[in-house]
Amino acid sequence: MFETAELGRTVSKKEFDKLEPDLRTELLITQRAIAKAGIPVVVIVSGVEGAGKGDLVNRLTSWMDARGMSVHVYWSSTDEERERPHWWRFWRTMPPRGTLGVLFGSWYTDPIVERAFDRIEPEAFETAMHEIKAFERMLSQDGTLFVKFWLHLSKDAQHKRWKSDAAMGRNWEVSPLTEEYGARYDAFEEASEAALRLTDTGAAPWYVVEAADARYRDLTVGRTLLNAMRARLTGAPADEGQAVAALDPPGKRRTVLDSVDLERSLDKKTYERHLAHWQTELNRLTWLAYRARRSTVVVFEGWDAAGKGGAIRRVIEPVDPRLMRVIPIASPTDEERAQHYLWRFWRHLPRAGFLTVYDRSWYGRVLVERVEGFAKPPEWLRSYHEINTFEQQLVRHGMTVSKFWLHISPDEQLKRFEERKKTPWKVHKITDEDWRNRKKWKDYELAVNDMVQHTSTTLAPWNLVPANDKRLARIEVLRCLCNAVGDTLDEEVAQPEP
Amino acid sequence: MFETAELGRTVSKKEFDKLEPDLRTELLITQRAIAKAGIPVVVIVSGVEGAGKGDLVNRLTSWMDARGMSVHVYWSSTDEERERPHWWRFWRTMPPRGTLGVLFGSWYTDPIVERAFDRIEPEAFETAMHEIKAFERMLSQDGTLFVKFWLHLSKDAQHKRWKSDAAMGRNWEVSPLTEEYGARYDAFEEASEAALRLTDTGAAPWYVVEAADARYRDLTVGRTLLNAMRARLTGAPADEGQAVAALDPPGKRRTVLDSVDLERSLDKKTYERHLAHWQTELNRLTWLAYRARRSTVVVFEGWDAAGKGGAIRRVIEPVDPRLMRVIPIASPTDEERAQHYLWRFWRHLPRAGFLTVYDRSWYGRVLVERVEGFAKPPEWLRSYHEINTFEQQLVRHGMTVSKFWLHISPDEQLKRFEERKKTPWKVHKITDEDWRNRKKWKDYELAVNDMVQHTSTTLAPWNLVPANDKRLARIEVLRCLCNAVGDTLDEEVAQPEP
Repeated sequence: MFETAELGRTVSKKEFDKLEPDLRTELLITQRAIAKAGIPVVVIVSGVEGAGKGDLVNRLTSWMDARGMSVHVYWSSTDEERERPHWWRFWRTMPPRGTLGVLFGSWYTDPIVERAFDRIEPEAFETAMHEIKAFERMLSQDGTLFVKFWLHLSKDAQHKRWKSDAAMGRNWEVSPLTEEYGARYDAFEEASEAALRLTDTGAAPWYVVEAADARYRDLTVGRTLLNAMRARLTGAPADEGQAVAALDPPGKRRTVLDSVDLERSLDKKTYERHLAHWQTELNRLTWLAYRARRSTVVVFEGWDAAGKGGAIRRVIEPVDPRLMRVIPIASPTDEERAQHYLWRFWRHLPRAGFLTVYDRSWYGRVLVERVEGFAKPPEWLRSYHEINTFEQQLVRHGMTVSKFWLHISPDEQLKRFEERKKTPWKVHKITDEDWRNRKKWKDYELAVNDMVQHTSTTLAPWNLVPANDKRLARIEVLRCLCNAVGDTLDEEVAQPEP
Repeated sequence: MFETAELGRTVSKKEFDKLEPDLRTELLITQRAIAKAGIPVVVIVSGVEGAGKGDLVNRLTSWMDARGMSVHVYWSSTDEERERPHWWRFWRTMPPRGTLGVLFGSWYTDPIVERAFDRIEPEAFETAMHEIKAFERMLSQDGTLFVKFWLHLSKDAQHKRWKSDAAMGRNWEVSPLTEEYGARYDAFEEASEAALRLTDTGAAPWYVVEAADARYRDLTVGRTLLNAMRARLTGAPADEGQAVAALDPPGKRRTVLDSVDLERSLDKKTYERHLAHWQTELNRLTWLAYRARRSTVVVFEGWDAAGKGGAIRRVIEPVDPRLMRVIPIASPTDEERAQHYLWRFWRHLPRAGFLTVYDRSWYGRVLVERVEGFAKPPEWLRSYHEINTFEQQLVRHGMTVSKFWLHISPDEQLKRFEERKKTPWKVHKITDEDWRNRKKWKDYELAVNDMVQHTSTTLAPWNLVPANDKRLARIEVLRCLCNAVGDTLDEEVAQPEP
């Protein structure tokens, strides 16, 4: 979920100074239109300690018209607030129609902090998230536009930020909570991820923003807010999603795929040794899983010609055929079309102890269906939440969910396409559709980035596999899969000799 | 919640035979239209043990075209089902688009049974309900029409039913669970009420049906189902409510108000004695509540001229003015109109230990706003759930929520209107609007009935007060209020001498 916000994006002062004036103008114009249309806008500014929430709020305040905007800080509650039901303090600060309320901290703060310090149980935390979802849905059905920002810093970036603050003598203005929270980075990350996963709905989506560079952070938030308000003004329904990815400044677009190192490769000898090792291990683990009655679901997605078929074959080879099934996902059948899009995947879930490989999957909803327009934006926008709920149900049942995106470069793809055309027994593998998809490379890149941001969770993380080298890709798949199954079984997994 | 299904409604065989043919024809025609429109319909048949769920399902099957309809029974789960995540068994039985799935038992059964036998904690039960709500919302956003029936029998009616079954030698076909469940009627009622309250959404509303008389039950279910399907066909949005009250057969309409005994009265002497008693008690209790920091919210609704003002004065008199406020609810101010409709009520919530009387309330949403069309059907339909959530938040915080509907007959109202016209210091109390409202008596009756069905909960029950006799009404209000506050404080409340 936070992988997409650790890409090292920056904006120079020069670029910032060039982009800022237009953004300010557009924000002001749009703010006036929002006022005229009577739309209440709730902007939530949350995120990692030290990510610059305060600076961002100041920037937003300086950019926009203060008359139609109010900032609310939820520090500690007053006695007036404590004497009323929990939601009272939030109700009293909701922005009237036509105005913006910027919430510095929010209803998310307390549950995340309490969970990170292990002062509430996971169940109570989840109930709190259900209540938040209901609250946001109620207001959004009434017309409120929610724009929720999560400012992310990696653990390293957080430390760097504090050191530089200290060096600049800015320590005195750092929150007193900084150190205490910093020491619990992992616990906070886990709680935050759960919060985002459970409340990332079509009606009130989360935007995860890389916050290591202040100028990048502020420009991205400004542009995303602008975009969300515009989408609402041009008629997107009140209680449906408005936009999706946080909007990078022009020319700055990077996706999580840019972080995949496509140069990596394996020589043939190492490959064969590792293949033997992992296949033996997978055989052992699938039998153990069978005895323990723990099932496994493996999802393969990736570019055309990225080598899904070959990787899947290496997974099949060592597993007893009685234990596994491969489900190739093509167009839905008539029977499947007559149901909710998730139905066709539910029906193939393995029994206790078995393994199912989905060759393409429910992620088609947010990949091909999004890019080709087969699903309307409200449909695929809300499906992130539906998918997360679905996968959570599998994991809660004790299943392993292992997801692979096989990544290649456009050049590598072209090379493989040409090769297929030339090879008689491969020519059937290349169709006009592959060439059409290729033209939409950029759209798919964005869709993959959003997919990872919204659905790569601790419960069911995405493995982005570098696949320019087929050998490396196959080994990576086997390695990740063995480790995932091993984790579920609480079984030590042997690593190959170096 | 179940008060509306204990009114003793029956349908004679003759009436039934007259009404059945048309209903069948209409159901068949509508079923064909549903098939053509490709709408999936999920009909849930739940309810009290012994209410005749099986008989009803058989009737529905005989009425409709079997080719577009399937019945699913969730008895005990198969091993195939147990080996998969919980929802698998339900997904596999979802009706394809254009067909009806009648679920005899459903995802509600297990959590209610487990809760009634105290085998799961309230928190786990609530989480289950949140998951159900999310599941139903997901399918309903995808186009599924949900029609959920709860067949209700009072405890007495349940016993009668079993005795008569036994007398008729039908015992052998009674569910083996009957006795075990019957012995826990109250626990089941509590769990069922919570289930209905937590999942009674605009998108998938519950219809509570009086089931003591089989012919009344079947006709009502048939007509309600017909109505819900028709509403969807005529364009009600997929994920918004379709209808509201269970539809009584023609000429059989009774509302919960018919169960209020308007003949009751108090003589002056008893009145004065009881008044003194309850006012003293209220004074004591409000001071105790102050010390215990427990707040109270009192809601007054009722017909025009039902005597709300007089009753409220009798509540005010004995309470220290520092402890209480009366909030008269008229048209919203500009500031209030710029917010969600619940905002104006949240803002007036009392601090710890204080008491607020709302003279009219958030129930305006489902009374005047519904009847006058100020709120659109999807808006007021979803507000039942919003209101229940709101009141649950108050009660969870430790507050007492006491709600009164002052009921008078139309004749009594006319008498009072005429009297007001003639009395110089009362003439300002009667306006054209009162006369206009009076013309819509029947609409209001239905709105009150629905309101009670959807929002009279154990946490915050409605008190329907007979108010043709003002003395009796005032004493009833004081008595119920004292008992409610006493309950919250766990404090014994003195009863007046007979």
